[in-house]
Amino acid sequence: MSMVEDTQVVDGHFKPGDVLEEGRWRIEFDSMGQVKVPADRLWGAQTQRSLIHFSIGNDHMPVEVYHAYGYVKKAAAIVNERLGLLPKEKSDLIVKSADEVIEGKLDANFPLYVWQTGSGTQSNMNVNEVISNRSIQLANGTVGAQDPVHPNDHVNMSQSSNDTFPTAMHIAAVKELKEILIPKVSALLTAIENKANQWQHIVKIGRTHLEDATPLTVGQEWSGYVVQIRSALKRIEAALPGLYQLAAGGTAVGTGINTPEHFGTKIAAEIAELTGYPFITAPNKFEAQGSLDGMVAAHAALRGLAVPLMKIANDMRWLASGPRCGIAELLLPANEPGSSIMPGKVNPTQCEAIVMICIQVIGDDTAVAFAGSQGNFELNAMRPIIINNFLHSARILADGSEKLRVFSVEGTEVNEKKVSEYVQNSLMLGTALSPVIGYDNASKIAHTAQDDGTTLREAAIKTGLIDAKKFDEVVKPHTMVGNTTLNFGV
Amino acid sequence: MSMVEDTQVVDGHFKPGDVLEEGRWRIEFDSMGQVKVPADRLWGAQTQRSLIHFSIGNDHMPVEVYHAYGYVKKAAAIVNERLGLLPKEKSDLIVKSADEVIEGKLDANFPLYVWQTGSGTQSNMNVNEVISNRSIQLANGTVGAQDPVHPNDHVNMSQSSNDTFPTAMHIAAVKELKEILIPKVSALLTAIENKANQWQHIVKIGRTHLEDATPLTVGQEWSGYVVQIRSALKRIEAALPGLYQLAAGGTAVGTGINTPEHFGTKIAAEIAELTGYPFITAPNKFEAQGSLDGMVAAHAALRGLAVPLMKIANDMRWLASGPRCGIAELLLPANEPGSSIMPGKVNPTQCEAIVMICIQVIGDDTAVAFAGSQGNFELNAMRPIIINNFLHSARILADGSEKLRVFSVEGTEVNEKKVSEYVQNSLMLGTALSPVIGYDNASKIAHTAQDDGTTLREAAIKTGLIDAKKFDEVVKPHTMVGNTTLNFGV
Amino acid sequence: MSMVEDTQVVDGHFKPGDVLEEGRWRIEFDSMGQVKVPADRLWGAQTQRSLIHFSIGNDHMPVEVYHAYGYVKKAAAIVNERLGLLPKEKSDLIVKSADEVIEGKLDANFPLYVWQTGSGTQSNMNVNEVISNRSIQLANGTVGAQDPVHPNDHVNMSQSSNDTFPTAMHIAAVKELKEILIPKVSALLTAIENKANQWQHIVKIGRTHLEDATPLTVGQEWSGYVVQIRSALKRIEAALPGLYQLAAGGTAVGTGINTPEHFGTKIAAEIAELTGYPFITAPNKFEAQGSLDGMVAAHAALRGLAVPLMKIANDMRWLASGPRCGIAELLLPANEPGSSIMPGKVNPTQCEAIVMICIQVIGDDTAVAFAGSQGNFELNAMRPIIINNFLHSARILADGSEKLRVFSVEGTEVNEKKVSEYVQNSLMLGTALSPVIGYDNASKIAHTAQDDGTTLREAAIKTGLIDAKKFDEVVKPHTMVGNTTLNFGV
Amino acid sequence: MSMVEDTQVVDGHFKPGDVLEEGRWRIEFDSMGQVKVPADRLWGAQTQRSLIHFSIGNDHMPVEVYHAYGYVKKAAAIVNERLGLLPKEKSDLIVKSADEVIEGKLDANFPLYVWQTGSGTQSNMNVNEVISNRSIQLANGTVGAQDPVHPNDHVNMSQSSNDTFPTAMHIAAVKELKEILIPKVSALLTAIENKANQWQHIVKIGRTHLEDATPLTVGQEWSGYVVQIRSALKRIEAALPGLYQLAAGGTAVGTGINTPEHFGTKIAAEIAELTGYPFITAPNKFEAQGSLDGMVAAHAALRGLAVPLMKIANDMRWLASGPRCGIAELLLPANEPGSSIMPGKVNPTQCEAIVMICIQVIGDDTAVAFAGSQGNFELNAMRPIIINNFLHSARILADGSEKLRVFSVEGTEVNEKKVSEYVQNSLMLGTALSPVIGYDNASKIAHTAQDDGTTLREAAIKTGLIDAKKFDEVVKPHTMVGNTTLNFGV
Repeated sequence: MSMVEDTQVVDGHFKPGDVLEEGRWRIEFDSMGQVKVPADRLWGAQTQRSLIHFSIGNDHMPVEVYHAYGYVKKAAAIVNERLGLLPKEKSDLIVKSADEVIEGKLDANFPLYVWQTGSGTQSNMNVNEVISNRSIQLANGTVGAQDPVHPNDHVNMSQSSNDTFPTAMHIAAVKELKEILIPKVSALLTAIENKANQWQHIVKIGRTHLEDATPLTVGQEWSGYVVQIRSALKRIEAALPGLYQLAAGGTAVGTGINTPEHFGTKIAAEIAELTGYPFITAPNKFEAQGSLDGMVAAHAALRGLAVPLMKIANDMRWLASGPRCGIAELLLPANEPGSSIMPGKVNPTQCEAIVMICIQVIGDDTAVAFAGSQGNFELNAMRPIIINNFLHSARILADGSEKLRVFSVEGTEVNEKKVSEYVQNSLMLGTALSPVIGYDNASKIAHTAQDDGTTLREAAIKTGLIDAKKFDEVVKPHTMVGNTTLNFGV
Repeated sequence: MSMVEDTQVVDGHFKPGDVLEEGRWRIEFDSMGQVKVPADRLWGAQTQRSLIHFSIGNDHMPVEVYHAYGYVKKAAAIVNERLGLLPKEKSDLIVKSADEVIEGKLDANFPLYVWQTGSGTQSNMNVNEVISNRSIQLANGTVGAQDPVHPNDHVNMSQSSNDTFPTAMHIAAVKELKEILIPKVSALLTAIENKANQWQHIVKIGRTHLEDATPLTVGQEWSGYVVQIRSALKRIEAALPGLYQLAAGGTAVGTGINTPEHFGTKIAAEIAELTGYPFITAPNKFEAQGSLDGMVAAHAALRGLAVPLMKIANDMRWLASGPRCGIAELLLPANEPGSSIMPGKVNPTQCEAIVMICIQVIGDDTAVAFAGSQGNFELNAMRPIIINNFLHSARILADGSEKLRVFSVEGTEVNEKKVSEYVQNSLMLGTALSPVIGYDNASKIAHTAQDDGTTLREAAIKTGLIDAKKFDEVVKPHTMVGNTTLNFGV
Repeated sequence: MSMVEDTQVVDGHFKPGDVLEEGRWRIEFDSMGQVKVPADRLWGAQTQRSLIHFSIGNDHMPVEVYHAYGYVKKAAAIVNERLGLLPKEKSDLIVKSADEVIEGKLDANFPLYVWQTGSGTQSNMNVNEVISNRSIQLANGTVGAQDPVHPNDHVNMSQSSNDTFPTAMHIAAVKELKEILIPKVSALLTAIENKANQWQHIVKIGRTHLEDATPLTVGQEWSGYVVQIRSALKRIEAALPGLYQLAAGGTAVGTGINTPEHFGTKIAAEIAELTGYPFITAPNKFEAQGSLDGMVAAHAALRGLAVPLMKIANDMRWLASGPRCGIAELLLPANEPGSSIMPGKVNPTQCEAIVMICIQVIGDDTAVAFAGSQGNFELNAMRPIIINNFLHSARILADGSEKLRVFSVEGTEVNEKKVSEYVQNSLMLGTALSPVIGYDNASKIAHTAQDDGTTLREAAIKTGLIDAKKFDEVVKPHTMVGNTTLNFGV
Repeated sequence: MSMVEDTQVVDGHFKPGDVLEEGRWRIEFDSMGQVKVPADRLWGAQTQRSLIHFSIGNDHMPVEVYHAYGYVKKAAAIVNERLGLLPKEKSDLIVKSADEVIEGKLDANFPLYVWQTGSGTQSNMNVNEVISNRSIQLANGTVGAQDPVHPNDHVNMSQSSNDTFPTAMHIAAVKELKEILIPKVSALLTAIENKANQWQHIVKIGRTHLEDATPLTVGQEWSGYVVQIRSALKRIEAALPGLYQLAAGGTAVGTGINTPEHFGTKIAAEIAELTGYPFITAPNKFEAQGSLDGMVAAHAALRGLAVPLMKIANDMRWLASGPRCGIAELLLPANEPGSSIMPGKVNPTQCEAIVMICIQVIGDDTAVAFAGSQGNFELNAMRPIIINNFLHSARILADGSEKLRVFSVEGTEVNEKKVSEYVQNSLMLGTALSPVIGYDNASKIAHTAQDDGTTLREAAIKTGLIDAKKFDEVVKPHTMVGNTTLNFGV
C-alpha cells in the first residue's frame, strides 16, 4: 500500500496541516512528533503510525466497528455537552461528523488492520482523528491542527479505548445480529417451513445410520429442520442481553477515572436512544473490560446455528444425490452448468457453500474462545480478533442463508416417483407385520425379500405366512407415519 | 480384558442360561444366536457382542448415562403398566431392577465403550439385558432365559434406542449440572466473593496490556471474577430448558411408531416426577432425534465457564509469581514441596491444573460441535462422543473448581507490603496531575522519574513543576479508584 | 476414593514407616512433614499430598508414562553409577525396581491424576517414591524410611521433573507409535490394499459432489484409501525424529545445573540402548523444556491420520447404505442385530465408531495445540494434558483401526449386481459419446434419458443420433476407467 | 455490488459479444443461455452466474490462486500443443494471456467468492473465460464469441476442475511458503539469533511455573526461541514434498478420462519448469482428488509455527511488563503513544498482534482439518475453504513475523540493571549452597531471607551457617548457568 510505503516520519519542522509534495501529503502530529499522511484522507498521526507498524495481511478492521464507534462518539459528545464539559459548538461538530461515520460516508478513512494492539486503541484513535479532522473541515479550520476539535481532549472526552472499544464491539454485534443475520435466517426458516407444509402428506422412507428405516413424511423431516433453526435463533436472541451491557464509563481500568459521575449510565442511555436497542451500562466494569465473555457466548450462539445448518445442507445434498446412482429424492434447482466434461451434471453447489461456511464458523469459534480466555488483569487484549471473527461468522451465515433460500430451498422439488418407489421397496415396512404374524415371521419375510430381490409383498405371499389381502390391510405406510400434523414449536 | 479375549461365539447347542467351564461362563442368546458371557455378570448376548467388536482404548460409557437410563426404563415400565400394556408383576420387577441401576448398585454390569454404534443402541441393550436378568434373579428365574422379563419385549417396550438414548443423555446432563457442577462452581463463586469483600479497600496498581496502569482495589479486581463466573453460571442455567426436552416417544424415526398414544408426554411426566426436574416431551421428535443441538449448546455453556476460569487462574498465578523476581502481590497456599533442587519453591499448581482443565474443555467443545454437525436424516449418530465429552467437561470443571477453592482461593492472601510499594512507585499516578499541571507537564514528570529511577513524587519536586504539599494533595491513590462499593450483579 | 478421603496429614510424632490402624496406613514423610498413606501401596508423602489436592474427575496419568519413566530412572541410575556418583548396590536396587515399573508390575502404585502440576513433578515424585520403597523392600529395609534408597537423592539423582517428565513423554509417545499405532494401522492398510487388489477390475460409477460421474474401478477407489493412509503413516514416521530428542540433562531450567558433565548425552545413549530406539539428547535444552513443539507436531500427525480415516469410514458407510433405499454398493458384515423394532436392519457401526474417534482426535488436537502455545519462560507447564491427549488419540486410533479391519474391512463385499446396474443406468457414460457425435448431441441424449427415465442406450437409439451398434462400440465403461493398474505409492 | 445487482439473465436473442446500455454490459453465453456481464471485464457467463448465486460476505478467492492457475493453463496449452492437440496459434494466445494472469495484470477480472462450489469449478471457469476473452482481444476478435479461443475446448483442454483446482492450490501454497513465509520468518529467526548472541553472557534469573528458579543467560533463553522457530521452519519444509505432488491429469474422477497419455507427468514437468519448483505428478490421482491431506498437513505445519511464535511473543511481553510493577527485564521499542490518559505508557502492541495472529491460525487450522475430513468418494469438495485458510494463515504469520522483527525484536534491549537485581535478590541461588552446607541448611537460609525480606547473602551470614567469604566463593550465578556456548541446532 503506497500510503504506507512512501511514508516517512518527518522531523518536525513543519506546521501541522502543512501540505507537501504537490498536495500528496499532509503533516499530522501526536505526542511523539510529526508524520506525513495522505492529504486526501482525514486520519491523523496515530493512524498513520499504525499503518506503518501493522500492515499485516489483508484483514482490515470491519467498517461495522467504525459505524458503531460513531454512535459512541456521538453519544459521548451529547452527554459531555449536557454535563457542561464540552462546549455546544464542539459537541455539534462532533455529532455531525459522527453521523457521517455512522452512515458510512467516511469509510475510506478507516484503513487499519485487525492485527494491531489488542485493546483496539489504534482504531479508537483513528475514529478520534477522523472526527476531529472532519469537524475541523466543517468549521473551515486547518485539517491537522487539532483545533477547534481535538481528537483526545474533545472526541475522546470521558473515554478510553479500554471501555469504548468493547462498547463499539457490542453495538456492532447487536446491529449485525438484529439487522442482518436474524432477518436473513428467519427468511430461510420461513422458506423451509413453507416446504414442510407443502410436503406435509408425502410419505417417504426414513433413514437412520444411513440405513433404511420406517417411514415418515417429507413434511415431518423438514419440520425437524424448522425446529432446529428456530431453536438456534432463540439461542442467538438469548445472547443479546449480554451484548446490551456496555463497558463505556469504566475508562482505563474499570474504575471510571476521569469520568463525570454516572457517565456510564448516561452514555448507555444515549446509545440506546440513538440506536433503538435496549443498551444499558454494564453493572461491573472490571468484568466488562477484563473479559469478553459476552462476545464468546454470542459467538457460541452463532456456532449453534452453523451446526444445524450443516446438517440440513448435508441432508439436502445427499437426498438430491444422483440422478441415477444416488438417493435422488429431491430435485435441487440447476443454477449453473455442471461439468465441462459430463453433460447434464447438476451439483449441489449452494449446499457445499453452506457446509464450508459452517465449518469456517466452527473454526472461527475456536479462535474466539481461545482469545476470550487470554485476558490478563484489567484488560482482555484480544479484542480485534474477536470482533473480526464475530462479524465474519455472522455475515457469512447470514448471506449464505439467503443464498441457500433463494437459490436452493425455494426451488427444491420432491421427486415423488422416486420417494414412492423407496417406500414400496423398503423392507422396513415389515415392522408393521410384527404385531400380526410375530417378529420372527416378519423377519423371515424381510430376509426372503432381500435374498430374492423382491418386494416385501411378493416375499410375504411367497412364504405363505400372510395372504395378499391381509398384507395390504396391514402394511400401510400412511398409517406408519403417525400424526402428520407438523409441530414447529421450540 | 479377559472377558473379551476368551469369549467365543458358540454354536447354539446350549440352553440359554447354561453355565460352562466350572461356572465361568453363562450362555446368552439374541436373534443372531448364542454367546458366552461371564457368569458373574448380568449382561446378555448383545452386550457381549459389543465388547468383542468395540473394545477400543479405555473410554467407557460413563456410568451416569446408565443411571439416567434407569429412570427411563423405570418410567417406561410404569407408563406401560398404567396403559395396560405390561403386566403389573413384570412392571414391578423392572421398577425394582431399574432402581438398583439408578442407585449404582449394578455399575459393574455396564462394561461397554464410548466408541460403539453412534445411536447408543448397544448401551441401551446393555441396560435392557441387565434389567431383564436382574428381574429374573428377583423372580428366581433362570438368568439368560429372557423370561419372565424380556429385554426387548418388556424392558424396551414402547421405546427404541433412537429416542431413549438422547433421553438418557439429557437426564444425565441435567443431573450432572444441577447436582455436581453448579453447586461446586457456586461454592467457588462464594469463596471469590468473600475474598473480594475481604479486600474491598486494598488499593493496588491496575495493569492493562500487562503494563502498569491506574489503580483499583483488589476487591474491585476480584469482583470482576465474581461477575464472570456468575454470568457463566447464568448461561449454564439458560441451557437447561433445552435439556429438559426429551425425545422419548419418537421411537425409530420420530413418528412414534409402536408407541401408545401420548406415550412421549406421559413418560416425560413420569421422568419429571421421578427425578424432580421439569422434564417435558420435546415438541418435535424429528429435531430431537435428528440433532443434538441442545447438547451442543449446553457444552458451549460449559466452555463459557472454562473461558473465565482460565482468565482467573492465570491472573492468580501471575499475581503470585515470584517470590522475588515476579509480581508477588498474592500469596497462594503452599500445598506441597516445590522443587527437589530449589529450596523454598512454591508453585501455583492448582492454577495450572485449572488452566489445563479449561484447555481440555475448549478442545472437547470442538469435538462436540463437530459431532453435532454430523447428523444425517432421522438420526444424529454421534451420541456417545457427545455425552462422554459433556460429562467429562462438566466433571473436571466441577472438581477442578472445588480443588481451586479449597486448596487455593480460600487460603490466598494479599501481600499488602508489595501491593503498596507498587502503588507508591507507579508512574501512572501521574494521571491525577494532568488536570492540575497539564498532560504535558505530567508526562515530563513521569519520564523524569523513569529516567532517574526515582518515584513520581521525587521527580515532581525535582522538576519544580509542583511542590510536595500540592503533590500530596493531588496524588491520592485512594481517590483514584472511584466508588469502591462492589457490584456483583450480572 | 477412600484412599484420599480418610487420609489426614498427621502431626509428625510418628517414625517414618510406622504402621497404623491395624495395618491400614503407613507413615511417610517429606520436607513438609508426615502423612498417612495406604499401607499396601508403595507411594510416599508427596504422592499422597497430590491425591488429596488433585482428585479431579477420572483422568489418571496414563500408565505408559510411568513405564517410560522406568527407563529414565533405570538409565539415570546406570549412568550415575558409572560416573561414580551412586554406589553400585543402590544402583542395582533402583535398576531392579525400575524394571518392575517398566514391566507394569507396579501399576497399582501410580494413582495420580492428569490434572496436577503442569510440570509433571508429582508423577515424577510418585515414581521416585515407589522405586525408593520397592528398592527398600528388595533390600529388606523399612518401607517409608527413605533408606538405603532415597527418592530424591538417589532415584532422582542428576535429574529434575523439568527435564525428565518431557523425556518420559517422548519415550511413551515413541513406544505407543512404534509398538501399537503403526502396527495396527499398517494391518488396516494391508487389508484395504488386499481389497483394492481383489476388486481391481470391477467397474463402478464415480461420484463427485455426491453426484454421478464417470466410472472408475472399485480397486482404483480403494487404492486412493491406501495412499491416504500410507501418506498419513509416513507423516507419523516423520514426527519421530522430533520425539527422539530428549530433554534429560537440562534439569531445572535447561542449564543442566547439578548434573555431571555430558549427563544428557550419556542418559540419552543409555535410554536408546535400553529401549532399542534411536534416542539422542536434545541439542538445545531451553527449547526442550520451554516448549513441547515436538509433541504438538506429533499430535498433528495423528490428526493427519484421523482426517483420511474419517473420509474412508464415511465412504464405506455411504456406499453400504440401504439395503433398498440407499447406494448399496458395498455389503458390510452384520456383526450384531440391528434394530429391536426393524427386522433385517444392519448398521455400519464400526464406521460410526471410527468417525467418532476421528472427531475426538481432531478435538484433542485443538487442546494439544492450545496447550503447546501456553509455555512461559523456561517451562511449558501444560505437559500432563498434552501427553494424556497424545496417548489417548494414538490408542483410540490404533484400536479403532484394528476393529475396523477385523470387523468391517476384511468382511466387506462388493454388491456387484448393484454396482453394475449403476454403471449401466448412469447418464455420465455419455461423456464417451462427445468425441463421436459432439458434446451437444451427447447432452441431448442424456437429457432425453433423464426425462424419459430410460437408459442412455435407449435414449440414444430413440433420438436417432447414433445406432445401437455404434453405441455399443463407443460406450464401453471398461475403457473409460483408463489404466487399471493400481498405484499404491506415496 | 452493482455488477451483480443490476445483472439479469437475458433471454437469448442477442449475439454473443453484443454490447448493451451504452457500453455498460456485454452479452456472454454458456450452455444454459445468455447473461449480461460488465463490459469492461473479461469474465464470461459462468463467472457472472456465480456472482449472482454466491456473493456471500467479503471473502474473495485469493488472487494467489488465480496466479497459480495461470501456470496450470499455460503448461496445459504448451503440452497440448506439443501433443498436436492444440494449434500453435491458439496455444500462443493462451500462453500470452496466462502470463498476464500470472503477473497479476488481470486481477480485476477474478471477482468470485470463497463460498462457492466446493470443487472450485467456478474459479476454474473464471480463469478459462478470462483467458479466452483476453486471447480473443489479443487476436482482435469479438470478446464473448468464444472464438478463436474457447474457454472449455481450448483453455480447459485435457483438464477438469477436479484435477486442476487442487493443482493450483498446491502451486499457490508452495509459492506462498517459499517466496513469502519462509523468507520473512527466516529473517525473524536471524534477528532473534543475533539477539541471543548479543546477550550471550548476561546472567538472568530463570523462571519455571512463573516462579523464580535457577539462573541462565539471556542468550540461552533466546537460543531456545531460535531452535523453536528453526524446528518449525524445518517442519514447514517437510510439508513441501506433499505439495509438490500435483493432481493434474486425473480429470473428472482420477482416471484421466479425456486426457492424452502421460498428460499428468507432462504437465507436472512443465509446471516445474515454469515455476522453478520440483513439482511432480501425484502417483495416485484418486487420493489426490478425493483428499486434501497434503494441504491439511501443510496447514498443521503452519500451526506448528504459530505455537512457538505465541510462546515467544508472550515471553517478550511478560518480560517487558512494567515499567515499575512488572518484570521489566526487557525494553521494547515504543512505536506509538501508549495511552491518551496515562502518560509514559508503552504497550507491547507487536506482541499482542502476534498472539492474535497465532490464535487465528490455530482456529483456521481446526477449520482446515474439519474440511479435510469431509471428502466423499472421488472428490473432496471443501477446497475453497482450505486454500483460503491456508493462504490467510501463511500470510498473516509471514507479515506478522516481519513486523515483529522490524518493530520489536530488533529494537529490544535488556534492562541489565533490573536483570542483575533479580539475580542478586533471588533465593534460588541457594541451590548452590546445598552441596556445601546441605539442602536443609540451605533451605533454612532461603526461608530466613524470605521472612526477613533480606538477600540470601544477608540471611546466610545472619544464620551463621556460612561466612561472607565462603558465601561469595560458592554462590556465583555465572557458574550456575553452565556452558554458555549457544546451541542453535535443531
